[in-house]
Amino acid sequence: MIGDPLPTEKLEGQLLPKKLALPIFASDPLSSVAYAPQELVMILLVGGLAFLSFAPWVAVAVVVLLVTVVASYRQLIRAYPSGGGDYEVAHRNLGEKAGLVVASALLVDYVMTVVVSVASGVDNIISAIPELAPWRVELAVAFVVILAAINLRGVSESSKAFAVPTYLFIGSVFVMIVVGLTRTAFGDAPVAESAGYEVHAESLTQAAVVLLLLLLLLRSFASGCSALTGVEAISNGVPAFRVPKIRNAQLTLVAMGGIAITLFAGLTAMALISDVHYAEVPCDLIGWAGCETEPQRSLMAQVAAATFGDDTVFFYLIQATTALVLLLAANTAFNGFPLLGSVLARDGYAPKSLSTRGDRLIYSNGVLILALAASVILVVFQANLTVLIQLYIIGVFVSFTLGQTGMVRHWLRELARMRHPAGSRKPAPRRPPADASPDDRPLTRGAMQRALVINAIGAAMTAVVLSVVTVTKFTHGAWIVFVLMPILFLLMLGVNRYYRDVEKEIEVDPVTTFGAQGDHAIVLVGRMQKPTLKALDYAIAARHDSLEAVHVSIDEAQTKQLKKDWVKQNIHVKLRILSSPYRDLSHPLIAYLKQHRAEHGSEVVTVYMPQYIVGHWWENILHNHKARRIRQKLMLVHGVTVALVPWLLDSSDLIYGRRSRPLPGQDRRGEPVRPVRPVPRREVREPGGARKP
Amino acid sequence: MIGDPLPTEKLEGQLLPKKLALPIFASDPLSSVAYAPQELVMILLVGGLAFLSFAPWVAVAVVVLLVTVVASYRQLIRAYPSGGGDYEVAHRNLGEKAGLVVASALLVDYVMTVVVSVASGVDNIISAIPELAPWRVELAVAFVVILAAINLRGVSESSKAFAVPTYLFIGSVFVMIVVGLTRTAFGDAPVAESAGYEVHAESLTQAAVVLLLLLLLLRSFASGCSALTGVEAISNGVPAFRVPKIRNAQLTLVAMGGIAITLFAGLTAMALISDVHYAEVPCDLIGWAGCETEPQRSLMAQVAAATFGDDTVFFYLIQATTALVLLLAANTAFNGFPLLGSVLARDGYAPKSLSTRGDRLIYSNGVLILALAASVILVVFQANLTVLIQLYIIGVFVSFTLGQTGMVRHWLRELARMRHPAGSRKPAPRRPPADASPDDRPLTRGAMQRALVINAIGAAMTAVVLSVVTVTKFTHGAWIVFVLMPILFLLMLGVNRYYRDVEKEIEVDPVTTFGAQGDHAIVLVGRMQKPTLKALDYAIAARHDSLEAVHVSIDEAQTKQLKKDWVKQNIHVKLRILSSPYRDLSHPLIAYLKQHRAEHGSEVVTVYMPQYIVGHWWENILHNHKARRIRQKLMLVHGVTVALVPWLLDSSDLIYGRRSRPLPGQDRRGEPVRPVRPVPRREVREPGGARKP
Repeated sequence: MIGDPLPTEKLEGQLLPKKLALPIFASDPLSSVAYAPQELVMILLVGGLAFLSFAPWVAVAVVVLLVTVVASYRQLIRAYPSGGGDYEVAHRNLGEKAGLVVASALLVDYVMTVVVSVASGVDNIISAIPELAPWRVELAVAFVVILAAINLRGVSESSKAFAVPTYLFIGSVFVMIVVGLTRTAFGDAPVAESAGYEVHAESLTQAAVVLLLLLLLLRSFASGCSALTGVEAISNGVPAFRVPKIRNAQLTLVAMGGIAITLFAGLTAMALISDVHYAEVPCDLIGWAGCETEPQRSLMAQVAAATFGDDTVFFYLIQATTALVLLLAANTAFNGFPLLGSVLARDGYAPKSLSTRGDRLIYSNGVLILALAASVILVVFQANLTVLIQLYIIGVFVSFTLGQTGMVRHWLRELARMRHPAGSRKPAPRRPPADASPDDRPLTRGAMQRALVINAIGAAMTAVVLSVVTVTKFTHGAWIVFVLMPILFLLMLGVNRYYRDVEKEIEVDPVTTFGAQGDHAIVLVGRMQKPTLKALDYAIAARHDSLEAVHVSIDEAQTKQLKKDWVKQNIHVKLRILSSPYRDLSHPLIAYLKQHRAEHGSEVVTVYMPQYIVGHWWENILHNHKARRIRQKLMLVHGVTVALVPWLLDSSDLIYGRRSRPLPGQDRRGEPVRPVRPVPRREVREPGGARKP
Repeated sequence: MIGDPLPTEKLEGQLLPKKLALPIFASDPLSSVAYAPQELVMILLVGGLAFLSFAPWVAVAVVVLLVTVVASYRQLIRAYPSGGGDYEVAHRNLGEKAGLVVASALLVDYVMTVVVSVASGVDNIISAIPELAPWRVELAVAFVVILAAINLRGVSESSKAFAVPTYLFIGSVFVMIVVGLTRTAFGDAPVAESAGYEVHAESLTQAAVVLLLLLLLLRSFASGCSALTGVEAISNGVPAFRVPKIRNAQLTLVAMGGIAITLFAGLTAMALISDVHYAEVPCDLIGWAGCETEPQRSLMAQVAAATFGDDTVFFYLIQATTALVLLLAANTAFNGFPLLGSVLARDGYAPKSLSTRGDRLIYSNGVLILALAASVILVVFQANLTVLIQLYIIGVFVSFTLGQTGMVRHWLRELARMRHPAGSRKPAPRRPPADASPDDRPLTRGAMQRALVINAIGAAMTAVVLSVVTVTKFTHGAWIVFVLMPILFLLMLGVNRYYRDVEKEIEVDPVTTFGAQGDHAIVLVGRMQKPTLKALDYAIAARHDSLEAVHVSIDEAQTKQLKKDWVKQNIHVKLRILSSPYRDLSHPLIAYLKQHRAEHGSEVVTVYMPQYIVGHWWENILHNHKARRIRQKLMLVHGVTVALVPWLLDSSDLIYGRRSRPLPGQDRRGEPVRPVRPVPRREVREPGGARKP
């Protein structure tokens, strides 16, 4: 995938060591600890305080699922180390449609990662500084704008600055859990500020309670599953790891899984111990006077305040690192989005331009679209975390399920191939040299069977969760995802079919024959200016069979001046004047060209036009429009080819000396930043003496 | 200005007879009658009911001003019949800076015309259907969107459908005034619904009252001056009139002025007779119970209801035609905006592309910008007419004052020239033939002196009003205009300076010499496809001194396939393969071109590239990006010219058969809609046999 013929040691320097890869890829999955326990507890409390006793069991179910998914992705990394992730697995093993479903799920996912992470980050900031509560939505949108600006400016994720907050977050939350548990062990269990509040629950009949219990357990589990979001990140970033890539990625994945489980379990435990009561509707908390005016503090903030005390340094540290790591998680989406775009473009499901590495404009557009979509969703849902999480989990579990199902198919196929190596197109695995890296060792039959079982369990469990999530969340906003995904799906399919049709259209066939004859050239002349002279000079140098200069007259005075200048400059090329009754440049030209072709048969006519090359983007607004319009119309005329003769304006000097900036997703792709080449200063004017015919 | 060599009788058919020109140009100035009396009365009432007795005097002052301005513009039309209006007059007589001040004032004006007209239109609709009151802003924005959509779609203003509402409006308001006055004469004066309400006024000392009186009189006068907005419209549209253009335009202007004065005076009189009390803050009306919940009905609606009775057909007719004519007035801004843009572009103060008649894209952008700006202002100021009018009048009077001052300078110069004909560059006026149209008759010395006096009075009065408006409205929102205008001014000046610098840069000078030698050609080959074969075919036909095909290898398999195809297609042109270590297309190419030039001296290298021509705008997203990027980079290489060989995709068939739609401003400019030319269906494939060297 990288395919760079650079010496390995040089490339190595650009790749990520495990200790940097962990924080970069783990900020997304680990940050979900900031909201998953809270949502889990909150949904249970809808049924009343008694339901809280089920929380440990729901948490255990989430942890079991997390272990399964991590184990599943360990296998996926082994089998598909190219960084395509779930999309690639589903596409290759389950076919195009399944791949596109995953792709559309992932696109929605990236937007929701930004939205949920930012919303949760703002929630935790408000928990520390309640005075900011009235500006919740404004703060959230501001953070999205800041992230977009940073990514438009260009930032390398692999800088150590990105690693610090993640480690700080892990460390401080871990310390908090240890302190909390220690205090509990010594009989001084922390007590949350909301511990004293009763929770309003409707009185129900016995039968309704059982039904409600079931539904709430499932909903709570579904919400708790938001802890799994982002686990797939490492599988998309394998190329960015140092060799042995697969082994290092797997180790990082397992480490990340271990940390996530510790934090999730620890935080849920501390929430239960300190008796945090968190309600979807704040005023359902009976006994809280300020429910209408004050913001409800996040579970993380309540645990931190209970453990370390309000207004302590530790409390603020926990809140600050939580907010920071959530913003980092949002940032990962800005990196992942263009990466997915380029993979889709490579496969022909997105505009090919998205696969052009290094086109800042395209990445800028991606960043802007992502930021705009995220801002709109934040405003529409008023940065309400609980509602947003409903939208988030669907996409995540669609890609989980299809990815794991694809892996099952993959292993079944591999095992079948091993049994019947004759039928296989691949040669039997060679024995690697003794000093091969662990990555190169072929899998044994037993390992494949183990992987098959792991992925099958993963697929089954995520499929169950997906149905649970769909059923319990559909009316809570998840239907929006089910509207968006098919639209994206159809768009991508349409793009692919379009490219296929064009491909067919331009395919070489034995019927179409070419055989242009003749060689006439025309130089378009407006006023006597240097760019025109240069175009004329080039046309003369190309020694066409016949050459003439053509001027379309839309202003009598200008035409007269040109004729005068023509004589003055001693140009021997014939100047033909076309009159334009409608003050239009292209129609008389097209009429002339058609007439010329009618007289001279299938002659190729080369039309020379000067083209300004400018330095600033805004200069394009001021140049070349007339020329572009004429060019577009001329190109419709049969037998015409347009020769653009560049004229570099002084301002174009500026385009040199621009430093290349890192592109979003560059680090996760393991690509080196292309070195800045010293470009020689342009020679401003043509050398050589005047040569007028 | 038109400069069309069409036979006159043919062009005449496209031009506007007076009876059509009047409604088209007068919808803007006449519609201001819908809000001017209301604002005049409202401001006076701030001081209490007693102040209302000054209303007739303020109205008389406004009428006197209106007469002066109409007389002034009569002279302007005579002297500058090209349609440039105030901008042209100020630019030619007072210099560039004054012209640009007018231009920036006019740009702000067009936006405010849309905003104020739509806001007043919605106000009158709500007066008829109070249930719509909660959706005031939404309605206003919706109308802006509808107007933009209509103008994006293309609509000819000269259709009779545009004339009907204006005449209906004039007729129905006139009937209302006559009926009202007749009833008053017979002792049955209409009584407005708000006649019974007292007006809340603060109790003040004697001295303060005198000061307040002065200030309120001035403010009321300034608000009443909104009756003058749009008077300049005819002076911008002279080219659209039938010959004798000047005479017809002048007659229409005077007719328009007469109607405006009648309606303004009549409506103000009726408002005073029927005792309409209209307050800036509705609850200042003492005795009105519903001031918090019900919308305050517009003065027009109150007079109509008092005269004809509530819920009568006539009442609804008045409200409907008022709203319609206001929307028409808003529409005129959508026509004037691109027209001003093209005049500014012609003079080099706006991107030249704006002067490209017939480029729908550019007009679309103009329509969108105007609609967006208007919508933002409507939302920010909550479609509050009173506040918006403050912003409106400033711009109007800036251009009035500078335009009239320019006219004074113009006449002084003309008179000086008449006294010293020797110093004049113009020949003495020839005696016209006896049957000359009135337009061609030269002005006598006496006529010029009369015109000078008229314009001098106009300039002085508008200057006084401008200072009154500025002083009384500055803190009421007019400061925004004073921020926006300098920004626009500097932008236009910057564009002009930029164009001037570039002009200087590309000017032919005796030092620069051209003398390219040699003629090498390269055909860029990606995969073996028909567009590539066509490009190759054209390159062969041009018989360059040397020709080679170049392929940049970024994919081993693709390169191998190409080599195979090259042999299979029996192409005798040498295929050169460049390796690309960074999977980048342009860098190896540029390196190769530089090396080639280093070896062969100042040889011109023509690079042939296929270019896809597509039918739908969205197809551009899917094509040509890689080619464009390479082209942009190649054009920076010295001695390179890029030859684009078009390949028309099947979908490009669609671009034919599109009908030309009228452009905004086409009618006022007096330009005919260009006839649709029958374009022959394109010949799909090149004729002639295969000719491979």
